[in-house]
Amino acid sequence: MKLYSMKQAVNPQRVRIFLAEKGLDIETEEIDIPSGQNREESFLSVNPRGLLPALVLDDGTVLHESVAICRYIEGVHPEPCLLGATPKEQAIIDMRQREMEFDGLQSIAWIFRNTAPHFAARSHPGAVPDMAQLPDLAARGQILAALWFERLNESLESQEFVAGDSYSIADITAFCAVLFARWVKMPIPDHHSHTQRWFAAMKERPSAKA
Amino acid sequence: MKLYSMKQAVNPQRVRIFLAEKGLDIETEEIDIPSGQNREESFLSVNPRGLLPALVLDDGTVLHESVAICRYIEGVHPEPCLLGATPKEQAIIDMRQREMEFDGLQSIAWIFRNTAPHFAARSHPGAVPDMAQLPDLAARGQILAALWFERLNESLESQEFVAGDSYSIADITAFCAVLFARWVKMPIPDHHSHTQRWFAAMKERPSAKA
Repeated sequence: MKLYSMKQAVNPQRVRIFLAEKGLDIETEEIDIPSGQNREESFLSVNPRGLLPALVLDDGTVLHESVAICRYIEGVHPEPCLLGATPKEQAIIDMRQREMEFDGLQSIAWIFRNTAPHFAARSHPGAVPDMAQLPDLAARGQILAALWFERLNESLESQEFVAGDSYSIADITAFCAVLFARWVKMPIPDHHSHTQRWFAAMKERPSAKA
Repeated sequence: MKLYSMKQAVNPQRVRIFLAEKGLDIETEEIDIPSGQNREESFLSVNPRGLLPALVLDDGTVLHESVAICRYIEGVHPEPCLLGATPKEQAIIDMRQREMEFDGLQSIAWIFRNTAPHFAARSHPGAVPDMAQLPDLAARGQILAALWFERLNESLESQEFVAGDSYSIADITAFCAVLFARWVKMPIPDHHSHTQRWFAAMKERPSAKA
């Protein structure tokens, strides 16, 4: 297997942490998004959507989409279980993962992509036509990310992890979103004590440096 | 089990089609989004995010997020298999499902929410602060939806279904996205013969009316 990744990018990081939690170390090739390497023919021949990460299996199959890659890894390396064991657990983890992704990660990405000077002409990710930044979309991202932070803190008052009593892919997505939010100057609010407690625990895991 | 749904809304439709393909018929309660019923206390007590669909299990657990609901149903009613049998199949179906969701459904939703008169003050779904429509986001949705249509047609040239040789949840998401696109006056382009062939087959399935 070979992973196309970028050290500073949030979505590849999700997969790298997932791999680290599984104790797996696989061949990785760096693709530089700010310079546009993800839209060059050599990478588009791997993933025509121009998005990272992408995982090439030994039979040549290319998987993209972070969560789909994690699902494959979970299937071939089931332990430790990060996607849930029973139908109900799997559904709750998937639900919470998606909530972290849509309400958190995406909102923060809207801020980042629509304000970062690197992406002045490429405010939508991947192999799509150039698009100018939309300040209004960044502003919307600010409102939604703040709301996501509020709800995350509330949910962590009554449970140790994002999807309940066990560490899961939902924690990985939320952790990467919190790290990503620092890039747009949105740290965890000081008074969000439950998120602070959870984040401190996440940072201590060896996978946090993946 | 009880499903909170809305007949005309695209995300509940995904779950209803999934249930129909499984041969399941469950109790349903209608929630009217345009009039704001999804942001009233009676529904927020079910799903604080104010999003449809939501599935309440017999033990009181509430699942939201269409795909998470489908994952639960697949777990308790495995046949016919709609999420894949092997780790590789499951990953490919998840990848394609997400591609249909992010590139297709979301782009079309951006157009719809940012142009429909009903949603002049609520251009982002769910229980979030009122947000004015962003014409630039609708325009971005147009570009991305057109690109998604192109790529969908290309992919269906060499395979019968969206994720390969078998009908799956990826077809359901794509089918609902194509129907949703009609609301924003984006029919399948006449020359997209592969998508036309696939869509005609989808429409013939009994589940299409769910």
